[in-house]
Amino acid sequence: MSHNTFGHLFRMTTWGESHGPAIGCVVDGCPPGIPLTEADIQGFLDKRKPGQSRYTTQRKEADEVAILSGVFTDEETGKQVTTGTPIALEIQNTDQRSKDYGDIKDKFRPGHADYSYFVKYGVRDYRGSGRASARETACRVAAGAVARKVLPGVTIRGALVQMGPHPITRENWDWGAVDENPFFSPDPKVVSNWGEYLDSLRKEGNSCGAVIEVVAEGVPPGLGAPIYAKLDQDICSALMSINAVKGVEIGSGFATAALTGTENADRMRPGDDGEPVFLSNHAGGVVGGIATGQPIVARFAVKPTSSILTPVETVDKAGKETDVSTKGRHDPCVGIRAVPIGEAMMALVLADHFLLHRGQTGKG
Amino acid sequence: MSHNTFGHLFRMTTWGESHGPAIGCVVDGCPPGIPLTEADIQGFLDKRKPGQSRYTTQRKEADEVAILSGVFTDEETGKQVTTGTPIALEIQNTDQRSKDYGDIKDKFRPGHADYSYFVKYGVRDYRGSGRASARETACRVAAGAVARKVLPGVTIRGALVQMGPHPITRENWDWGAVDENPFFSPDPKVVSNWGEYLDSLRKEGNSCGAVIEVVAEGVPPGLGAPIYAKLDQDICSALMSINAVKGVEIGSGFATAALTGTENADRMRPGDDGEPVFLSNHAGGVVGGIATGQPIVARFAVKPTSSILTPVETVDKAGKETDVSTKGRHDPCVGIRAVPIGEAMMALVLADHFLLHRGQTGKG
Amino acid sequence: MSHNTFGHLFRMTTWGESHGPAIGCVVDGCPPGIPLTEADIQGFLDKRKPGQSRYTTQRKEADEVAILSGVFTDEETGKQVTTGTPIALEIQNTDQRSKDYGDIKDKFRPGHADYSYFVKYGVRDYRGSGRASARETACRVAAGAVARKVLPGVTIRGALVQMGPHPITRENWDWGAVDENPFFSPDPKVVSNWGEYLDSLRKEGNSCGAVIEVVAEGVPPGLGAPIYAKLDQDICSALMSINAVKGVEIGSGFATAALTGTENADRMRPGDDGEPVFLSNHAGGVVGGIATGQPIVARFAVKPTSSILTPVETVDKAGKETDVSTKGRHDPCVGIRAVPIGEAMMALVLADHFLLHRGQTGKG
Amino acid sequence: MSHNTFGHLFRMTTWGESHGPAIGCVVDGCPPGIPLTEADIQGFLDKRKPGQSRYTTQRKEADEVAILSGVFTDEETGKQVTTGTPIALEIQNTDQRSKDYGDIKDKFRPGHADYSYFVKYGVRDYRGSGRASARETACRVAAGAVARKVLPGVTIRGALVQMGPHPITRENWDWGAVDENPFFSPDPKVVSNWGEYLDSLRKEGNSCGAVIEVVAEGVPPGLGAPIYAKLDQDICSALMSINAVKGVEIGSGFATAALTGTENADRMRPGDDGEPVFLSNHAGGVVGGIATGQPIVARFAVKPTSSILTPVETVDKAGKETDVSTKGRHDPCVGIRAVPIGEAMMALVLADHFLLHRGQTGKG
Repeated sequence: MSHNTFGHLFRMTTWGESHGPAIGCVVDGCPPGIPLTEADIQGFLDKRKPGQSRYTTQRKEADEVAILSGVFTDEETGKQVTTGTPIALEIQNTDQRSKDYGDIKDKFRPGHADYSYFVKYGVRDYRGSGRASARETACRVAAGAVARKVLPGVTIRGALVQMGPHPITRENWDWGAVDENPFFSPDPKVVSNWGEYLDSLRKEGNSCGAVIEVVAEGVPPGLGAPIYAKLDQDICSALMSINAVKGVEIGSGFATAALTGTENADRMRPGDDGEPVFLSNHAGGVVGGIATGQPIVARFAVKPTSSILTPVETVDKAGKETDVSTKGRHDPCVGIRAVPIGEAMMALVLADHFLLHRGQTGKG
Repeated sequence: MSHNTFGHLFRMTTWGESHGPAIGCVVDGCPPGIPLTEADIQGFLDKRKPGQSRYTTQRKEADEVAILSGVFTDEETGKQVTTGTPIALEIQNTDQRSKDYGDIKDKFRPGHADYSYFVKYGVRDYRGSGRASARETACRVAAGAVARKVLPGVTIRGALVQMGPHPITRENWDWGAVDENPFFSPDPKVVSNWGEYLDSLRKEGNSCGAVIEVVAEGVPPGLGAPIYAKLDQDICSALMSINAVKGVEIGSGFATAALTGTENADRMRPGDDGEPVFLSNHAGGVVGGIATGQPIVARFAVKPTSSILTPVETVDKAGKETDVSTKGRHDPCVGIRAVPIGEAMMALVLADHFLLHRGQTGKG
Repeated sequence: MSHNTFGHLFRMTTWGESHGPAIGCVVDGCPPGIPLTEADIQGFLDKRKPGQSRYTTQRKEADEVAILSGVFTDEETGKQVTTGTPIALEIQNTDQRSKDYGDIKDKFRPGHADYSYFVKYGVRDYRGSGRASARETACRVAAGAVARKVLPGVTIRGALVQMGPHPITRENWDWGAVDENPFFSPDPKVVSNWGEYLDSLRKEGNSCGAVIEVVAEGVPPGLGAPIYAKLDQDICSALMSINAVKGVEIGSGFATAALTGTENADRMRPGDDGEPVFLSNHAGGVVGGIATGQPIVARFAVKPTSSILTPVETVDKAGKETDVSTKGRHDPCVGIRAVPIGEAMMALVLADHFLLHRGQTGKG
Repeated sequence: MSHNTFGHLFRMTTWGESHGPAIGCVVDGCPPGIPLTEADIQGFLDKRKPGQSRYTTQRKEADEVAILSGVFTDEETGKQVTTGTPIALEIQNTDQRSKDYGDIKDKFRPGHADYSYFVKYGVRDYRGSGRASARETACRVAAGAVARKVLPGVTIRGALVQMGPHPITRENWDWGAVDENPFFSPDPKVVSNWGEYLDSLRKEGNSCGAVIEVVAEGVPPGLGAPIYAKLDQDICSALMSINAVKGVEIGSGFATAALTGTENADRMRPGDDGEPVFLSNHAGGVVGGIATGQPIVARFAVKPTSSILTPVETVDKAGKETDVSTKGRHDPCVGIRAVPIGEAMMALVLADHFLLHRGQTGKG
């Protein structure tokens, strides 16, 4: 966790801007001998890829990943496996239209990182917001696909649980529905409403926020490194690092503030296999920073896309007042494509803590 | 950020359990030449100290800090200043009653870290929950006091904005009121209600959650190290590392999910001094992971104390079912004492990023 | 300093094998606004490039570097500058002859990393020794060129001071000679002897070791972060990480063991500008882990190339005894090409400590 | 490895000055369930303790270690074991005579860290050289004793192999002799000569350097994390971090520069148990940064003590020329007491890499 590197033992370092020749990442610390090909990664990238429906940006990025290092084809088995050395993943940028950004070259888009990057670095890379572009998240998804392979027996799934002011109905939850609608909604009944809502926003040149939920099942109990690399802390850190995220919670999250101790207690009973069974999961699978073996449940809030067609008041580089509207091809609800990104970040944290826990305790 | 160390350049490493002889921390990376005495730290510890009112635990800990290293008295000025080397802070444990814990020696308290620590480490340190005890947070408060001295011109204040299901009324906000009531409430009108609510919970052997808000003003724009040491990411990580925290948000947080892009935009206008003025602060002072110069606003949710008198179903070390109730002297609402802890974590993150930013850019 | 990442604040992460499609690195934490083009880097790569004379390997690698991210062309000045975000550098592999390695596919070359990598990772990447190949050092040289630009006023130069058993004569030292002979020798009079020695070794299918000296002048006093990131410690760590290095020393190094305290004392006298002048430099510019302002002098010993034509006894993957000789195009004295690598590592450490020192103290 | 913290997963953070109330360290990341008492540590501290013979400083430090956290007495076994949480070790300073330093308060002792610390931090802590004092190494020895317990089956031993210009005779090597003479010499025949040499130096108010060798046997093959946490790199870094060390080498070290490839090759033959047997150990047990299973052999050179009675030219804080002689009770040959320190640093690196290797590969 430092500048552009995430993780303790299983580490991802990302690089690249939306309007340079390519983006990529280096995945370091991966265990050796794990089967890995581009095909293992591409499916996850395709879920995040722009242009999958009319509800996401119409940029056309192929987002084809290449593995440039860290794998070797075993001649006996014919399988390509990880070698334990750095896995370099690279994705070419193919659809950059820098001219889309000409109008905003000297203007700071409110809510966007334009101003804060400029005030920090003194350089204004206006092309697709440079390093602050969400394009960087493609690397996370690619690295997350590698992380999943380190975690056999763990299932990580995400879903959109609120779009703008419209939440799903929890009773309708169906994991099977998630990939069958353009919003990754687990509630098939909310889909048409969300579609209409988003269409109306797009027409008025506006955008909306969202809430995403990520659930990891089959996580070995014991993962987590208290006090300052708690499992929920690192999950929270991972999700907050995603562009436009403004809040993160674990288990019952903010709602626990309104509960009493008796209501919030996740009672335990002996299970059939000797392991305890929990009668509820307010904790979201993590207590004291350590996994209990229950499903890990995290949610994060994504603010509305700040690149909108509606003009808003701002200032320019010279400090003069002006208005700005963004003509680029932007997502009306970036929260949608944040679903596979959230899953990837969860996978990265769990793989990292799997190795950390094994290192310290010898378990796993 | 690794095991028991927090921070990149300005780092705190904490150690100790509630029922050992002492607890302490090492603050490393502090700039030299900063005036520092025990008195600079003690005031903040006193705010967190148990037994300050009938609404917090009745344990009697003096919580007196000693500076064991890293300072030197300049003979010319007579001032004690930091030397740039590690500052060791130590607090003796004076009121340990291990026998309070005899009853729960072999039982896992639901919601508590008993089970998860045991499943991770295979050791059951039942005395005051060992390392998982919130007593560790005294070290954070002490280190946070040092961090504040690295940040002249920055004001960091916290307040309790919700107790159980009862929020403050934002219109009544008065920073002056915070230290004048036992709850750190910024709304003087809610105090008596909160008192009655907490009294009734205590009588029934129950507890409640809370929400705390921390605000930092005067933060230099530019602090923050994208992509994986974003300022808001590190603040959230810091707050999530506090015992019992289940959710964290920045600025308008989860509420932004329900906003549109036009509503959420923090419009900018030219200011008198050449710096832009923001017309709102939905962002909470951080955009793209970098401080804009606006106040940084973070909130975190604390779950109800899991150590309660009311018996709840659980299992013991042998895996047999039983009930557990905790007779120790516990806080009915740990959220109250979390206020100075939240402030301290904010201070630690800001001091750390102040040094990081200065290192990379030469500014500050 | 962790797996494939070097540095605290100015960090390089390298990836790639000699026989994959490419190698590269990510330079993170670089200050913004520094002019940087491929041309700034290429000259240093050319010094390390194979095939520059008959005394180095005859592989033909173009070693052309591409900057894939982290720079932006300022339209007003027309200059390409760093943005403060990760700088990805990439070099295509163009001359891989895996068939050269067919013979040794299942054999462990003594002194080579074949066996130790296999025993660690369980994968035998026999192609050019995979990740253990010195080809990785091209990335160090590229990153080192960026590091130099962070350090204006600092001059970093290296030279070969011993080849096999033949040292230079120190009285002949002439920095101007270093680039005028194929051995980077600062002593022009030793060149013909070294040439003859190396020719005879090549003919007999043998190799030799070497000692390299690196000197940094103009280093600001104060760089260094005691106790565990001492400047000389990090320099030694950097140099020891280079392939085939077996020893490192600072200043008078191992020779100080034989000196007395009076002999070894670097006496100080007042200088014209108020700064002290040292009458000798046994310390090599670093005392207590902190730079004094004197030239920093480090030396490192490189063992003889282990890939030799002469057959030596070994075992194969199946554990059976066999002989191995290496037919690839190898350097008879890898120490020669280690000169620019040593310079690069020195530059990386100094740039890193320049930022660390500025971060903690505000100086520089 | 950062400021005052050493290690990746098994980490030691030290604090304290020679003339403060105490020194100490925090050992973090230790596996749980390891039996550990003060007695396990004290024996190693006693080896390093001053005043053990007339050949070391006559300061009287009891150097009694207290374990303040991270252990728990299992009631069933009655054994005190590590809990997996931070182990705080503390040693009181009992024999500080700051007045010994009054004379040198404003003078910079050549070869000492006085000047470099002052130029870095702007604070002159003249009492026993503050943080630069070798007293800090007591913490390393204490932490190293914990590290040894993480490594069952590994034997780590050190010895003095050269005092001033007088090396041992290798043929006389007898590990049993090391603890039977005041110099940790493995060559009993050199002891009387060394004694006379040191006596004469003490009489003339002078000092001398030394070379120490540390050998680790039974190290599991595979330890080491290429490319930038190579096992030999980290050993080198660990040893260079010790006060007064000016050079480090592994295996045949600097001597390999003068060897040919055929001479330096550590030939391999099949062993009885299927593991290869090496016919020599020029590599010193590490190839490509990874342990081969052979004994790890490292040597380091310690310069002569810079605190000497003989006056030498220097400058004072005001920049004026003066002479300085040091009247404190100093070691005429600090290399002697560096033996247990070198062993401790070796233990710390090996324990750390044992956990790192287990984390990444699951082995060990």
